[in-house]
Amino acid sequence: MDLREEILQQAKKAMVGARELGIISTEVKNQALVAMATALESSAEEIIEANKKDLEAAKTKGMKESMQDRLLLTEKRISDMAEGLRQVAELKDPVGDILSKNKLTNGLEVTKISVPMGVVGIIYEARPNVTADAIGLCVKSGNAVVLKGGSEALLSNKAIAEVLTKAAEANGIPKGSIQLIESTDRQAVKELITLNGIVDVVIPRGGAGLIQMVVQTATVPVIETGIGVCHVYVDAGADCKMAANIIINAKVQRPSVCNALETLLVNKDMADEFFAVMLKELKDNKVEIFADEKTRGYDNTLAVATEEDWQAEYGDLRLAVKVVDSLEEALEHIAKYGTKHSECIITNDHEHAARFQLCVDAAAVYVNASTRFTDGFEFGFGAEIGISTQKLHARGPMALPELTTYKYLITGNGQTRK
Amino acid sequence: MDLREEILQQAKKAMVGARELGIISTEVKNQALVAMATALESSAEEIIEANKKDLEAAKTKGMKESMQDRLLLTEKRISDMAEGLRQVAELKDPVGDILSKNKLTNGLEVTKISVPMGVVGIIYEARPNVTADAIGLCVKSGNAVVLKGGSEALLSNKAIAEVLTKAAEANGIPKGSIQLIESTDRQAVKELITLNGIVDVVIPRGGAGLIQMVVQTATVPVIETGIGVCHVYVDAGADCKMAANIIINAKVQRPSVCNALETLLVNKDMADEFFAVMLKELKDNKVEIFADEKTRGYDNTLAVATEEDWQAEYGDLRLAVKVVDSLEEALEHIAKYGTKHSECIITNDHEHAARFQLCVDAAAVYVNASTRFTDGFEFGFGAEIGISTQKLHARGPMALPELTTYKYLITGNGQTRK
Repeated sequence: MDLREEILQQAKKAMVGARELGIISTEVKNQALVAMATALESSAEEIIEANKKDLEAAKTKGMKESMQDRLLLTEKRISDMAEGLRQVAELKDPVGDILSKNKLTNGLEVTKISVPMGVVGIIYEARPNVTADAIGLCVKSGNAVVLKGGSEALLSNKAIAEVLTKAAEANGIPKGSIQLIESTDRQAVKELITLNGIVDVVIPRGGAGLIQMVVQTATVPVIETGIGVCHVYVDAGADCKMAANIIINAKVQRPSVCNALETLLVNKDMADEFFAVMLKELKDNKVEIFADEKTRGYDNTLAVATEEDWQAEYGDLRLAVKVVDSLEEALEHIAKYGTKHSECIITNDHEHAARFQLCVDAAAVYVNASTRFTDGFEFGFGAEIGISTQKLHARGPMALPELTTYKYLITGNGQTRK
Repeated sequence: MDLREEILQQAKKAMVGARELGIISTEVKNQALVAMATALESSAEEIIEANKKDLEAAKTKGMKESMQDRLLLTEKRISDMAEGLRQVAELKDPVGDILSKNKLTNGLEVTKISVPMGVVGIIYEARPNVTADAIGLCVKSGNAVVLKGGSEALLSNKAIAEVLTKAAEANGIPKGSIQLIESTDRQAVKELITLNGIVDVVIPRGGAGLIQMVVQTATVPVIETGIGVCHVYVDAGADCKMAANIIINAKVQRPSVCNALETLLVNKDMADEFFAVMLKELKDNKVEIFADEKTRGYDNTLAVATEEDWQAEYGDLRLAVKVVDSLEEALEHIAKYGTKHSECIITNDHEHAARFQLCVDAAAVYVNASTRFTDGFEFGFGAEIGISTQKLHARGPMALPELTTYKYLITGNGQTRK
């Protein structure tokens, strides 16, 4: 069987599974999720065994240590994954909600209800925890899932998916609903993301390269996730101490993630007071600054920011810093360089706060809080399948409701159109 | 300037326009729409003049008469377009709705509000009325629009867009918000639908060829519209007279549209009684039947249905007819051949009605009513930009709210992430 045929067959099995999974009861789904969590924990040993083989191969190939850490599974990490499944079981079922109900003048009753997407494709890198997370969220939202993880994690992913699939099917989840693509051929992704009419949506999770490849190649609908060139703008008259706390948190707490700060904009009327403290504080936190000329006026040892710095999602402790003349200049800069992820103003001026929130086109627009809060758990959704940076159909953190669409049910007594 | 650069420049102008258009008041948008309607009517003569040139060229090229009719503009049709703009002015502004509001335990206030998509691309065929409709809906929903209509209607579209743009800009709609691509090079569409980061969504409106080209080629998000292989299933014990009325309406009233009936499924226990009347009634209405063997048992002069017939969106008075053993077989057939547009059961059995509405995966699932009602106006939305046959982000008839997305506004007092 050639690769396209193999992927097609898996996707078709998922499509068949999806039809049944989309209509089973909340109770069955929840019981299955709890059973899956238990199975995961009791299979920890064999999963860790498989993971060791992946890790050895990765080391041999010279994988970066930070990547190795993402690939690593421990008993604690497996029980965290299991706990995640139990939490998803506790969440409200997003399927079958009545979103609106109208009676038309001709007597037709039109009811809009939430339904699963159908078949969801998840493309991700060598992070085996995504396997369990995605399976859990898709089962709960009534979606069949086709997983394509990074080759470096294949044995780990297989071990996890096998345990979860077995427990799922033994507890009423329709056969075929969970599919893991085992091919390590890069072409496999391309086959999956061009199965129009079978795959309803693909969600790529990973670095810019992976996401761009999927966006550029897919013919099925894609939800683009994750690229975040996030800005904090310190307005004139802002509270310097609050600004410093937020900036250090947004930049330093976890610099590798998409909601971390990448560019700091400071109003010129704040610069004297603010930089007097902030530049040192950033240095103390090992932040490497790339500065415009005005900022360098405060410290000429700072590296010069180039056009590339304004565009950069550093993902590490580098930070671009620029002095702007006004709120409007900050808005212009964000409109030009932002990626519509998370943007923040620090201000004591209510009008400026309102204008910033009105004008900035981003999934999450903050006043006086760290951009690091853009996250399904922090927003209180209880889960997260990714953070959308496009506007179709979900924006920002996506949880269970964002894995559903809707349909209209129309009930009449013989109405015909005039 | 080469083509890509030309399209890029137009899209960038739209993007600049969108930033301002997205935040102007409802009053300004409504007054502009009314002024645009008046301008359209008072320019009827020059629009008709331009349309005559398009029509002459189309006739010379041998355009089909039904297509010529779609291209034709009359004083009546222009005043209908103007009336459409006035109706859109009357509709509720979909921007700025508070969709949810939560206070998190850490004190952060998270407000989800509706915002425009940004830049909407509309790709369509030689139907100049789409130019006015799309401009009206996009202005009202705060979106800049980039229009690419069929080359055969270029002069008509230019005339309409010029009149509307002039009236819009004179009445407070930001410059650049309305863009019409004048190039007749087919490559122009490809350039437009690959402008990631500038164009937020493209909506193709037209035949299967156009839509497939856009779906296959676009790298920006697409809302697929319009292909409808719609089924009516006549259940055992259905009211034959009601069934006949609905079937004739769904098939005959306007066979060229996407919500028209294409395949009739009849329960075997109904076939004797139903076909005794229905086959003659279909023939009387000039419907040409392609039948399975069981149906041909009632009239062996009927053409034999092939696999292609079950897949066909005829768009004319042809109809595929099949006898099925059960509701379940009908559901299987629809799952296999339906296009997730509009599907109908005619039944007196409440359980069957409920199962049909639960199991059928389509934008609109009918009980005892004609599929022809799948339409933004019929659903009471007051407008329609298209009918989505995908699940991302809108499904079924799309009106003003479906031209918006949302953003989260988060307001704090210095919160940082733990």
